[in-house]
Amino acid sequence: MIDSQSPAALRAAPQVGILPAGPHNCITDVSGVKVGHTTLAQGPIQTGVTVIYPHAGNLFLDKVAAGASVINGFGKSMGLVQLQELGVIETPLALTNTFSVPMVAQAQIRQAITANPQIGRDWATVNPLVLECNDGYLNDIQAMAVTEADYFEACTNVTAQPAQGAVGAGRGMSCFGLKGGIGTASRIARQDGELARSAPDYVVGVLVLSNFGKLRHLRVNGHMLGQDIKRRMARHETHETLPAASGIADNAPDQGSIIIVVATDAPLDARQLRRLSMRAAAGLARTGSNFGHGSGDIAVAFSTSMRISQQVQAEQRSAIPLHEQQLEPLFDAAAEATEQAIVNALWRATAVTGRDGNTRLPVTHWLHD
Amino acid sequence: MIDSQSPAALRAAPQVGILPAGPHNCITDVSGVKVGHTTLAQGPIQTGVTVIYPHAGNLFLDKVAAGASVINGFGKSMGLVQLQELGVIETPLALTNTFSVPMVAQAQIRQAITANPQIGRDWATVNPLVLECNDGYLNDIQAMAVTEADYFEACTNVTAQPAQGAVGAGRGMSCFGLKGGIGTASRIARQDGELARSAPDYVVGVLVLSNFGKLRHLRVNGHMLGQDIKRRMARHETHETLPAASGIADNAPDQGSIIIVVATDAPLDARQLRRLSMRAAAGLARTGSNFGHGSGDIAVAFSTSMRISQQVQAEQRSAIPLHEQQLEPLFDAAAEATEQAIVNALWRATAVTGRDGNTRLPVTHWLHD
Amino acid sequence: MIDSQSPAALRAAPQVGILPAGPHNCITDVSGVKVGHTTLAQGPIQTGVTVIYPHAGNLFLDKVAAGASVINGFGKSMGLVQLQELGVIETPLALTNTFSVPMVAQAQIRQAITANPQIGRDWATVNPLVLECNDGYLNDIQAMAVTEADYFEACTNVTAQPAQGAVGAGRGMSCFGLKGGIGTASRIARQDGELARSAPDYVVGVLVLSNFGKLRHLRVNGHMLGQDIKRRMARHETHETLPAASGIADNAPDQGSIIIVVATDAPLDARQLRRLSMRAAAGLARTGSNFGHGSGDIAVAFSTSMRISQQVQAEQRSAIPLHEQQLEPLFDAAAEATEQAIVNALWRATAVTGRDGNTRLPVTHWLHD
Amino acid sequence: MIDSQSPAALRAAPQVGILPAGPHNCITDVSGVKVGHTTLAQGPIQTGVTVIYPHAGNLFLDKVAAGASVINGFGKSMGLVQLQELGVIETPLALTNTFSVPMVAQAQIRQAITANPQIGRDWATVNPLVLECNDGYLNDIQAMAVTEADYFEACTNVTAQPAQGAVGAGRGMSCFGLKGGIGTASRIARQDGELARSAPDYVVGVLVLSNFGKLRHLRVNGHMLGQDIKRRMARHETHETLPAASGIADNAPDQGSIIIVVATDAPLDARQLRRLSMRAAAGLARTGSNFGHGSGDIAVAFSTSMRISQQVQAEQRSAIPLHEQQLEPLFDAAAEATEQAIVNALWRATAVTGRDGNTRLPVTHWLHD
Repeated sequence: MIDSQSPAALRAAPQVGILPAGPHNCITDVSGVKVGHTTLAQGPIQTGVTVIYPHAGNLFLDKVAAGASVINGFGKSMGLVQLQELGVIETPLALTNTFSVPMVAQAQIRQAITANPQIGRDWATVNPLVLECNDGYLNDIQAMAVTEADYFEACTNVTAQPAQGAVGAGRGMSCFGLKGGIGTASRIARQDGELARSAPDYVVGVLVLSNFGKLRHLRVNGHMLGQDIKRRMARHETHETLPAASGIADNAPDQGSIIIVVATDAPLDARQLRRLSMRAAAGLARTGSNFGHGSGDIAVAFSTSMRISQQVQAEQRSAIPLHEQQLEPLFDAAAEATEQAIVNALWRATAVTGRDGNTRLPVTHWLHD
Repeated sequence: MIDSQSPAALRAAPQVGILPAGPHNCITDVSGVKVGHTTLAQGPIQTGVTVIYPHAGNLFLDKVAAGASVINGFGKSMGLVQLQELGVIETPLALTNTFSVPMVAQAQIRQAITANPQIGRDWATVNPLVLECNDGYLNDIQAMAVTEADYFEACTNVTAQPAQGAVGAGRGMSCFGLKGGIGTASRIARQDGELARSAPDYVVGVLVLSNFGKLRHLRVNGHMLGQDIKRRMARHETHETLPAASGIADNAPDQGSIIIVVATDAPLDARQLRRLSMRAAAGLARTGSNFGHGSGDIAVAFSTSMRISQQVQAEQRSAIPLHEQQLEPLFDAAAEATEQAIVNALWRATAVTGRDGNTRLPVTHWLHD
Repeated sequence: MIDSQSPAALRAAPQVGILPAGPHNCITDVSGVKVGHTTLAQGPIQTGVTVIYPHAGNLFLDKVAAGASVINGFGKSMGLVQLQELGVIETPLALTNTFSVPMVAQAQIRQAITANPQIGRDWATVNPLVLECNDGYLNDIQAMAVTEADYFEACTNVTAQPAQGAVGAGRGMSCFGLKGGIGTASRIARQDGELARSAPDYVVGVLVLSNFGKLRHLRVNGHMLGQDIKRRMARHETHETLPAASGIADNAPDQGSIIIVVATDAPLDARQLRRLSMRAAAGLARTGSNFGHGSGDIAVAFSTSMRISQQVQAEQRSAIPLHEQQLEPLFDAAAEATEQAIVNALWRATAVTGRDGNTRLPVTHWLHD
Repeated sequence: MIDSQSPAALRAAPQVGILPAGPHNCITDVSGVKVGHTTLAQGPIQTGVTVIYPHAGNLFLDKVAAGASVINGFGKSMGLVQLQELGVIETPLALTNTFSVPMVAQAQIRQAITANPQIGRDWATVNPLVLECNDGYLNDIQAMAVTEADYFEACTNVTAQPAQGAVGAGRGMSCFGLKGGIGTASRIARQDGELARSAPDYVVGVLVLSNFGKLRHLRVNGHMLGQDIKRRMARHETHETLPAASGIADNAPDQGSIIIVVATDAPLDARQLRRLSMRAAAGLARTGSNFGHGSGDIAVAFSTSMRISQQVQAEQRSAIPLHEQQLEPLFDAAAEATEQAIVNALWRATAVTGRDGNTRLPVTHWLHD
């Protein structure tokens, strides 16, 4: 049996792309952004909640501009209709499994009411934002195990240095038939030439909940790693030492999903953020995804420097958006950070056994023999 | 004090438009469609659930083609992303108040799993479809009073002759500052001229959850009824006999919403059904709506004769869609049935007093003095 | 024979709605907006070009924010893809017949290059914006009679007091089986209550190219005028004095279209302007349209006070957009001005005879017997 | 000086992906599809027209189902609004330079009228479909050199074995700072497992007009070829032998575009074809595109086996669409064929010198030193 607890050196994720990363190569390199997890890992329950805070204030009072791209809409996320109409996020972004969306949404409503008792009375209602993937291979998703308390716990767990891999909402996720989950990365967006005069460097951070893909398509830095791993698996299966690996039904349809959260400190308006979110699809494709039929591939982007107040005020917008010609470096950064975040999710993952003894091994399991 | 329990003769809703109605002037004139309500009406809790079944079979196995139009996306409905991508409905359509969406969605998931234990295991997950309006003026929406049991009860209550007005999800809804709620209507779509040779008459049925509008805009059959009522209210307020009427803050922003469900037995595909759903906006506008900023105005259309099987089979589609040139009578019918359904919701409503003693009087209250 | 050159008193268009109009009840009430026409009216050629200038400057260098709603996409307009992505207009808006879109677009390209020789060399290309309706009943549309010179002439003809009715692009258009064409109107958008403190009155102006609808659906101020006119027509046809009226094939499918241009001086961004443009659909519906299958119903909105420079500069945006809660009065104004503009197009129209002797009589023809 | 007329062996394009190609690795492997070019190559005029025929019949009478994805809408294509509403293509697809869209559209209108004189009289108007990229670096795009005759000539030139590279609309296009243009490829879509029982193999063919990208991003089969070429360029520039190469402003914004036409013989409806077209974005990304701000990246997909008749008939649809679960192999094929078509466009390109002596060298120029 191969030891999936390989040395850290072996587990260092490959660096992809050509742009510099932020100081922590993490979505929290965007100043003010924080991430929290609750992980449920008991027998057939392998799931959790992950929350992303755009800032530490009252998000309902002090919304952030946002946009989204539904790359493939085979997904049950909640909150996108209003996000696309009004162009703001007014709660933390929550990630969880498909069937726990309702319970997490209910917790978000309660949380917003607690902080703003006028909601649903003097003020409009709040728009929960819960994004999901289906972790049903490892997790007993029918158990709907996530509770409101799990969401609140994730909120209290927020940190600028979040764990990655099989944690939080990523606990039970699979990716390319391997162990998937939470990954994050960042890139610095630097204006070229004359454009640099009027714009400083900005950070684009990405966090993914990765749960998609067919092994034969996996590529890392352009290398068809999935094909390599399939060959190694075939060798092992001959010796019948790896029954778990048969959990990889590579000819099964892609029933996964990926949620991609893109954060930036660049002042962008909602339309520009929708454009930015679309570039996540380029990074996703470069890991081997073809946006599979059964995969709910959704990207949401927000700007921490474009705040919109709940109440009408003289200064309800905190910034003027960038000129459209200044978006290009941000687009490149979003694509590259997405690709890196997926790679990080794969490399930071650890083996998980869950429902019915189903097991997912991490990519690192296959790299050292 | 004016008696809102006026004689039935006074309450007969005006007929709008020029097309013939179906036999019951109800969404259930579309063969197989049934509607069920659960009504919660105790003190500050004035809310409920309404369900619409496209057919009586297993909806997950035997889906119906569907399309949707987000006329104004200030709304928290759940399930539209996947509906728009895949073009099917695979659960009953559920209507409730904004903050009860999660609990109803959870009940829908449970219901689908019970009927199809493969969901989330061998098969993909199910897409709950829960549409909502904000009934916070009459209902203590913060109480999140709707339970899963309320949804299941609505499902057992289904009938071809549903109640209208202040029932089900419509219990606490307001419309044009008056009592709103559930209304339904139908129209016969007859092909003109040569087109009639290849197409029989079809039925278009509409059910609305109406909770929108400013009184000054209300018009019925083109008459500016809202302006009349405002004058009557002004007279009454002089005598200080109607404090409840002051609940109508006519200069308040439109924080309501309307959900419009359009059913037809015409064989239409998802793209055509999206087109059909958009025509609901025309009927809505003719009652006085300008698709207010704060109003989540959403229309969903489905076809009972365009079935799509969950599993791959030789005959997975039940029909060939109509020729595009045959859509016109269906469009006219959808617009007119929507207008009629809203009028019916207003006329079938009864006075409701709820949270903090807030009261909504029905339109009929103002018609007989 | 009835004299369609009825006295002006008879031709005064009904006022619709409840909001105050601007000083000229014209799209040019939005300061800086100007309109120009070229009318071609010779035998079977009954067509033209209408242009709308958001401001008098160099539109490519000094773009205006814009949004659009495709209410029904059976239309051949050019320029909407880029408008929706980038949220700006960078040429005058041009209206013409369906088959003259190419020639007008070519003229727009030439015009932009002349003013900005860097286009297509050092700078990106220009996005022509040409919107159209099918005037084929009165006009020999196959002749493609509009030339580049006709577009340039319309540009030199710009004025703040444009003619309405059977002029410019409206020359050959039909509406509800009557004579349609160009109509315009404006409404004042006044903030309610506390919102007024931070926002002055704004103007919303609308110009329509109206070419849609079935006579039986026409309603004006809620009155089913089309039904009245049908009865009058039936009386006349008995006497066989009005062969032209038989050109109204009321059971024919709606093969028309309407282009609705919404202008405002309120500072709105592209997303908000898309929302504003959608409210034109409400005004359109109130005249009797159900967004017919064959009708390309498209609305474009722009803001004269939200300028975006072509070149990257420190101050590339001229304003902060309004708070979302301040949009409501603008929405009401856009809907009402659209309804009024259509009514004005009908009332300002005059009888036109064109291709194959086809004739459209104006609505006023039927009002005074 | 390096000889860009390198031996054919050097110019054989790398094969990408893991799926089998069709017999000619060409969009014409989809039975019935044909392609024609007109190439203009005289001094500063380096441009042309390419047409794609879905079938050889009367396309207006016998339309094909179609869908489109606007990956990045910085583009001036014509015809997409109606294509997206009605889900059909009713003319050949035409590709040309940005400023020749009007002239080609006018030719398409004339062509459709000639074949169907009822257009614009008894029948609705025709929807031209003209897609474009900006070839302004090599071509004097301001000259608007393409004529209607050039379009008609391309139509007469149709063949099942079209040329690739610097031909037709691709004549003046640049890609990754190298010579771009026309490329095509095909892939076989084979159902996995049980799904194969009810579906035969289908072909997915792609033709691209490639004109996008920054050299530093170019990757082929995952290899960062653009970085290699930059290094080689740097060496040559030291010796000042290659002034032309300085035309590659690698830090310039991406002002290109790509048009991706996806054809299949699988019976798909318009909604499914929109989904299929979106997968072209995955193949595009794998060559190094991040969907640059200034790049109009648009994909259109059609099915040759899903015909829709112009006139209402009993059998107006030629097929039942595939089950949604059978789309996955088609998605994979569309992504891979797109990637291959772009690679083929690069490898089949030859050096072109045009406006102001601007030169683009092909990728093969840099492969053999």
